[in-house]
Amino acid sequence: MRVGFVGLGAMGRPMAMHLLQAGHALSVWARRPEAAAALVEHGACRCGTPAELAAASEVVITIVTTSRDVEDLAFGAHGLAAGFERGGIHVDMSTIAPTTARALAARYAQLGIGWVDAPVSGGEQAARAATLAIMAGARAEDLERVRPLLLALGQTLVHVGEVGAGQVAKACNQMIMVAAIQAAAEAMHLANAHGVDLARVRTALMGGSAASRVMEIIGGRMVDRDFAAGIQARLHHKDFGLVLAEAARLGVPLPIAAQVAQQLDTLMSNGWGLDDTASLLRVLERVRVGAG
Amino acid sequence: MRVGFVGLGAMGRPMAMHLLQAGHALSVWARRPEAAAALVEHGACRCGTPAELAAASEVVITIVTTSRDVEDLAFGAHGLAAGFERGGIHVDMSTIAPTTARALAARYAQLGIGWVDAPVSGGEQAARAATLAIMAGARAEDLERVRPLLLALGQTLVHVGEVGAGQVAKACNQMIMVAAIQAAAEAMHLANAHGVDLARVRTALMGGSAASRVMEIIGGRMVDRDFAAGIQARLHHKDFGLVLAEAARLGVPLPIAAQVAQQLDTLMSNGWGLDDTASLLRVLERVRVGAG
Repeated sequence: MRVGFVGLGAMGRPMAMHLLQAGHALSVWARRPEAAAALVEHGACRCGTPAELAAASEVVITIVTTSRDVEDLAFGAHGLAAGFERGGIHVDMSTIAPTTARALAARYAQLGIGWVDAPVSGGEQAARAATLAIMAGARAEDLERVRPLLLALGQTLVHVGEVGAGQVAKACNQMIMVAAIQAAAEAMHLANAHGVDLARVRTALMGGSAASRVMEIIGGRMVDRDFAAGIQARLHHKDFGLVLAEAARLGVPLPIAAQVAQQLDTLMSNGWGLDDTASLLRVLERVRVGAG
Repeated sequence: MRVGFVGLGAMGRPMAMHLLQAGHALSVWARRPEAAAALVEHGACRCGTPAELAAASEVVITIVTTSRDVEDLAFGAHGLAAGFERGGIHVDMSTIAPTTARALAARYAQLGIGWVDAPVSGGEQAARAATLAIMAGARAEDLERVRPLLLALGQTLVHVGEVGAGQVAKACNQMIMVAAIQAAAEAMHLANAHGVDLARVRTALMGGSAASRVMEIIGGRMVDRDFAAGIQARLHHKDFGLVLAEAARLGVPLPIAAQVAQQLDTLMSNGWGLDDTASLLRVLERVRVGAG
């Protein structure tokens, strides 16, 4: 398939490489040409604008940071929408607001262009191993057309529902994952105050009802005090901004998500945004309760 | 081994039966004789008081509800301490305060009696299947003596540290597990507000970084709206009282544990204490944000 790709960051580069290796004709667009160098060496074409990329592609995949980034790519000057032929599909794998996904899909639909929101979970490691968990929101016929592309990138692909539903699932994923990181941090901090060995606590917990992917991976980083990213905490901070904005719009109470967001605010204000979200442990350690 | 057992509730009954089936000489004491009937039929002896039970046993295992219950059993009138010979060991598998565990161990030590705190994770299902996760706090030599008994009850046994360390690990376990239940409830509630299918959201999440035992089991109950216990929420409410009391004593900030405790308070005040902790979803559904 003729596939375009935008967003050659730590996640996007290995994902684009998997598409090349699966035999697709890959075009890329990157603000900084050096980000595309390795892919071009392996046969990808570099385009001058997103519009040129869309004109060369049946499907364009984007994985960038913010809702605004995706809007600009799609409908900004020389954007994808200006280049797609009717029947083209924009697959956005970024983590953005469900409302933005729905709004972009509606604008594309007026041009006869499809939309799939397909955010992912699993981080850089899963991107490199092509074992991402992909949560898709789309019309069934659009998802079917791009399914082979997504299966080259991920281990699981769940069609959650209509356009936007992939982003809703991703919001749920982030709420649960970062709450689990915060809970692990609180537990580790309490165990530390008791003078109990954290590595053994973690081992004990992995056998029981508190076992989780987070305790395994991020809990291990807390035990080792390894705060190098991993997952840059600034991205989780961004995600919680989205979650709380949606919650406010919908009138939904999210008491611990709101509390986690505040802890992430404190993390950011300590300058740890480029470090792993395991740094939530360091946020707790900065607080002295009842010190006087 | 001559083993005594107190606490023939939903957890304790199958655990005591495993000890009988492993060939140990079992004595039991129960406030209500009918709780012991099945075990007595299978060959257990019934004792008239905890003191008599301890006199008949090398090791006594207790699994009851509150710190006060364990104190009364150990040092109340006709308590275990009055019956144990020197060298006896009290293995407490209840979930109680680490400070209580340490205080009881110290009193026992003056009498030449050992103490192991060995709280468990996994619930009734794991108790029946003898697959509990056991977190032990004890002197190494005491734990070695009772290890065969514990291995008849559990799948994993981790020696977390000195006396009290088992209870610290259990507190960590509960903080993490119930925070995960609350996070799942918030995610499900947000997804519901978006009109997205919860079963598919759960399936999508199980493939990624948010995957956990809680999402698998309690998340499934939320999807099915099956609020029958499972794990009675009143027990988690009790556990969070312990956690926050310890945190206050140690000067440790636990922002989401405190928030979860408040949600559990609301759950209790709605009369759902005998229902599953999945009822935290119902607590959120009772709130109308911005309704006016």
